[in-house]
Amino acid sequence: MFTKNYPSQLLEEAVEQFASLPGIGRKSALRLALHILKQPVENVERFSRAFTELRRGVKYCKQCNMITDGDYCPICRDGKRDSSVICVVESIRDVLSIENTGHYNGLYHVLGGIISPIDGVGPSDLPIEQLIGRVKEGVVGEIILALSTSMEGETTSFYLYKKLSGLNVRITAIARGVGFGDDLEYADELTLGKSIENRQLFKY
Amino acid sequence: MFTKNYPSQLLEEAVEQFASLPGIGRKSALRLALHILKQPVENVERFSRAFTELRRGVKYCKQCNMITDGDYCPICRDGKRDSSVICVVESIRDVLSIENTGHYNGLYHVLGGIISPIDGVGPSDLPIEQLIGRVKEGVVGEIILALSTSMEGETTSFYLYKKLSGLNVRITAIARGVGFGDDLEYADELTLGKSIENRQLFKY
Repeated sequence: MFTKNYPSQLLEEAVEQFASLPGIGRKSALRLALHILKQPVENVERFSRAFTELRRGVKYCKQCNMITDGDYCPICRDGKRDSSVICVVESIRDVLSIENTGHYNGLYHVLGGIISPIDGVGPSDLPIEQLIGRVKEGVVGEIILALSTSMEGETTSFYLYKKLSGLNVRITAIARGVGFGDDLEYADELTLGKSIENRQLFKY
Repeated sequence: MFTKNYPSQLLEEAVEQFASLPGIGRKSALRLALHILKQPVENVERFSRAFTELRRGVKYCKQCNMITDGDYCPICRDGKRDSSVICVVESIRDVLSIENTGHYNGLYHVLGGIISPIDGVGPSDLPIEQLIGRVKEGVVGEIILALSTSMEGETTSFYLYKKLSGLNVRITAIARGVGFGDDLEYADELTLGKSIENRQLFKY
């Protein structure tokens, strides 16, 4: 009887909203909605407020397009970072992932997407002119391309390479290869091939 | 750098709120918060509103304590249901699960908990007098106990049995046994024992 019709429209709506999130099915959504029911009203209000405030209040860094609460993000504002290197990534998530490694001290440029004719995303839809502008300021010595190796990612990397190659800046790309701790036998041929091709002097 | 500190307090708060949900870790919470960022403002407002409205607006059926938008739930209001049978369950979820089977046409009584001295829940904290009141009205011929087989569930079932046994009502419990499609070798001994003990005439 209730597979689709819950005994309460309010519950129905809450389940539907939770189920609209990626990776959350209707069963999990029901569990989450019933969890909400058991929380104090203040907690639920704080919960709900967080998302509208995030969506309404969020700003993007005027220099690199990273998410921030002010005009410039903490990375661009950080005087200790190496402003001569810019790592070009597709998304905010990518910045957070690279930051978590603790192995990078330069700046970023978040494209917010990649060139994808199928999705109607062309070069002019991405902040590529903004990146060129940053390079033209003359401080930048290296651009690291850290886009995906999908067809669209490669297209975007190539487009950026063409656009930037006249600008007296070193253009590099992150290394691709067999991951740490991964068995060679399970690596795909392309990855393993790249690993051999891009071999480095053994350091110990 | 951002393992704990995101570049935005608003993002931090949204991630924290998502991570407060059961079964959602900080990695998933970040993914959900970034999903929220990409949605139109109206959608995010509808999303947020659903939970405060659920929490503030929800009512419980005056007869069976099921969640509802009105005074009585759709099950209690449904004249086609058999009001001579009441199935006693612990939670709203249990009602939804039994309804989904399509095998039950009686009413319910949602306890909203079970007797648990460790958690400080005694019989007086549960709507047991309300159940007795329903039975005393004289229409009810059978009470089905559908509580868990945990120590607390068994205690509650036994308490209800003692309380109801003088009231000229048949007291039954749902069958326990090896599930449909389950292999006997993987069933625990208690379940398999119950399956044999409660064997029924073979029907075909």
